Amino acid sequence: MSDKGASPNNPLPLKGVLVLEFCQYLSGPSAGLRLADLGARVIKIENPGKGDLCRILPIKNRWVGENSLLFHTINRNKESYTVNLKSPEELAEILELIRQADVVMHNFRPGVMEKLGLGYEKLKGLNPGLVYAEISGYGSRGPWVKKPGQDLLLQAMTGLMYASGDRHDPPVPFGLAIGDILCGAQIVQGILAALVSRNRSGKGAKIELSLFESLLDFQFELLTTYFAGGQRPLRSKVQNAHPLLGAPYGIYATRDGHMAIAMVPLKTLEEALGCKALGRFTQEMVFTHRDKIKKVLADHLASDNTAFWLAGMREKGLWAMDVKNWKALKQEAGYKHMKLEQKVRLPDGQPVLTNRCPIRIDGKRLVSDRPAPALGTDSEKIRKEFNLFKATT
Amino acid sequence: MSDKGASPNNPLPLKGVLVLEFCQYLSGPSAGLRLADLGARVIKIENPGKGDLCRILPIKNRWVGENSLLFHTINRNKESYTVNLKSPEELAEILELIRQADVVMHNFRPGVMEKLGLGYEKLKGLNPGLVYAEISGYGSRGPWVKKPGQDLLLQAMTGLMYASGDRHDPPVPFGLAIGDILCGAQIVQGILAALVSRNRSGKGAKIELSLFESLLDFQFELLTTYFAGGQRPLRSKVQNAHPLLGAPYGIYATRDGHMAIAMVPLKTLEEALGCKALGRFTQEMVFTHRDKIKKVLADHLASDNTAFWLAGMREKGLWAMDVKNWKALKQEAGYKHMKLEQKVRLPDGQPVLTNRCPIRIDGKRLVSDRPAPALGTDSEKIRKEFNLFKATT
Repeated sequence: MSDKGASPNNPLPLKGVLVLEFCQYLSGPSAGLRLADLGARVIKIENPGKGDLCRILPIKNRWVGENSLLFHTINRNKESYTVNLKSPEELAEILELIRQADVVMHNFRPGVMEKLGLGYEKLKGLNPGLVYAEISGYGSRGPWVKKPGQDLLLQAMTGLMYASGDRHDPPVPFGLAIGDILCGAQIVQGILAALVSRNRSGKGAKIELSLFESLLDFQFELLTTYFAGGQRPLRSKVQNAHPLLGAPYGIYATRDGHMAIAMVPLKTLEEALGCKALGRFTQEMVFTHRDKIKKVLADHLASDNTAFWLAGMREKGLWAMDVKNWKALKQEAGYKHMKLEQKVRLPDGQPVLTNRCPIRIDGKRLVSDRPAPALGTDSEKIRKEFNLFKATT
Repeated sequence: MSDKGASPNNPLPLKGVLVLEFCQYLSGPSAGLRLADLGARVIKIENPGKGDLCRILPIKNRWVGENSLLFHTINRNKESYTVNLKSPEELAEILELIRQADVVMHNFRPGVMEKLGLGYEKLKGLNPGLVYAEISGYGSRGPWVKKPGQDLLLQAMTGLMYASGDRHDPPVPFGLAIGDILCGAQIVQGILAALVSRNRSGKGAKIELSLFESLLDFQFELLTTYFAGGQRPLRSKVQNAHPLLGAPYGIYATRDGHMAIAMVPLKTLEEALGCKALGRFTQEMVFTHRDKIKKVLADHLASDNTAFWLAGMREKGLWAMDVKNWKALKQEAGYKHMKLEQKVRLPDGQPVLTNRCPIRIDGKRLVSDRPAPALGTDSEKIRKEFNLFKATT
């Protein structure tokens, strides 16, 4: 690895790995963030005008300085290098930087990098050890290559909206950008596997993922079941929480709130809740009579408080939990113990509180208080450090 | 790497990496599957009685031979080695196998591996290059260490159920085991990063993840927004698809179906749909008047068919898509082009159709027709190959 600019006291596993991130919005940048969490040096390559368009994408209309709060959370611990890729001189600089890099990742539409002169075939000639990672909506070829690769549209396209909600509900989207997040996680897997392999062979690789393939992979249980039986797995009529799991798996309203019940034998459940009406059903009926069992249970649980039911369930070692919102969660000792929050310090001293990386290494949590970069803030430093001026002369 | 048993014509990046999977159900086995997809040799270490309990976990009551269909889909391309870990002789065998391995992963409850004599401190002494990966519900310490690490319960605990559904809906679970899947994806990231690092240092590492931390990481946008404003991001009253995004982002019923509309400027949307009622709102109002805008739009879209609206939207380049179920999806040319299905051949010749790995390397899709192993089917072969008999003499 280049070890360019690796801090000597960086104990993290990806120390010395140089990543160039030609990415915007969520999928690619979330992958870049994870690589940075794990110790890689990640440089965002941005155009000098607006940069990553996520900088101006509002969520909840929250801004930190001139940038969207979302941009800050997902681009912390990175550097920013601005370059006009349509200028031959500046392109020469970036090619010199790529020659010294370990990873190039992008999530442009198919064909854009090639048109810019940054396709894999060309870059491989320049740097045979390069790992080139590409995220698209629907792959780089085929009838859907021009469709927009946006998370909600992909959820709509892939059948995922028939996993949540109840049978007679309309299609229910997952309320977070699940395609972007999964695809970002998987491109990291591919990049790291290619780096492991490169240590042996000296050769890089091209890694490709699409939101479409990631979202279908996510549904492998549903699809495999559909392929096997020819019938679509249907959501239960009430209390659906997974189309493939039998009763009582679901969320139930109690007199004062809601509780989750996972896989639990019916007989023990009957005893734990004093729910005699469950007695008409045997364990063999959890699929065939799934919705009826759930309805009986729902009626019963509405009659008392969550704490009462949970006490009975826990005494028997049954899997149940009250449903919390974020406010209730934050007050729990177990939440505090996890130390999931970390402060990022903006250049003007303003703190942004966000989540740390979920991975722990050798018992240590991975945190970094380094903020997201201002657009182009590291350009000059990087030009000097990597001797990019010579590329243009 | 040990290169033990690596097939000489395996071109995959993790060729020669030996992984011992002490895992059951979904989170750990999904990580093992991905490592196998990428070329690692993955041996499931199972007890000789029932083995991985996922073998007998029914989904939709679908079975293939004596095993659950779910078990087959998630444990394809692995081997099975059975061992009674409470027998000192058999434990000595497994320790010898671990001495020769690259990765040990487990998702037992905290303390179980230590009690069996397979804690990281001990194994590190035996094999300093070992990467030891551990998945738990809530980490290995702290007030919640004994809580059951089950996906639905963790969804309930982490506030995730207030991301999907509309404002006045009860908490809505994601209809798939999102915590297991994300945590499994992230442990692969940690394992591969540690292997990259080991190539330099010769030293292994302990990688830890919990379902709890993975599910909070997934909600980083919601939590960062909550931390910043002190107010919980709320689902929209109608057509919620992401609590942080302004109108029109959501799913809308049309006269004959449903369609998804992503980030779209209001003015252009008004023109594309001929929806004059949207004229009372400006772009600045997409957060402040989110629910009202969505309601106006919902009323308008109910008046004609999906294809009609989509034609108008696409003409203006706006992001919209009809909502498909799995059946409709499978008939699309774009789906077929992806070649996402692969056949796994069981020992008795019976085929199981399932999804392939979503990652492509150097333009090639990763497929393997190797089925999930019968319990203990590879024990003798592995004993001989790794010379484990000597460990017991």
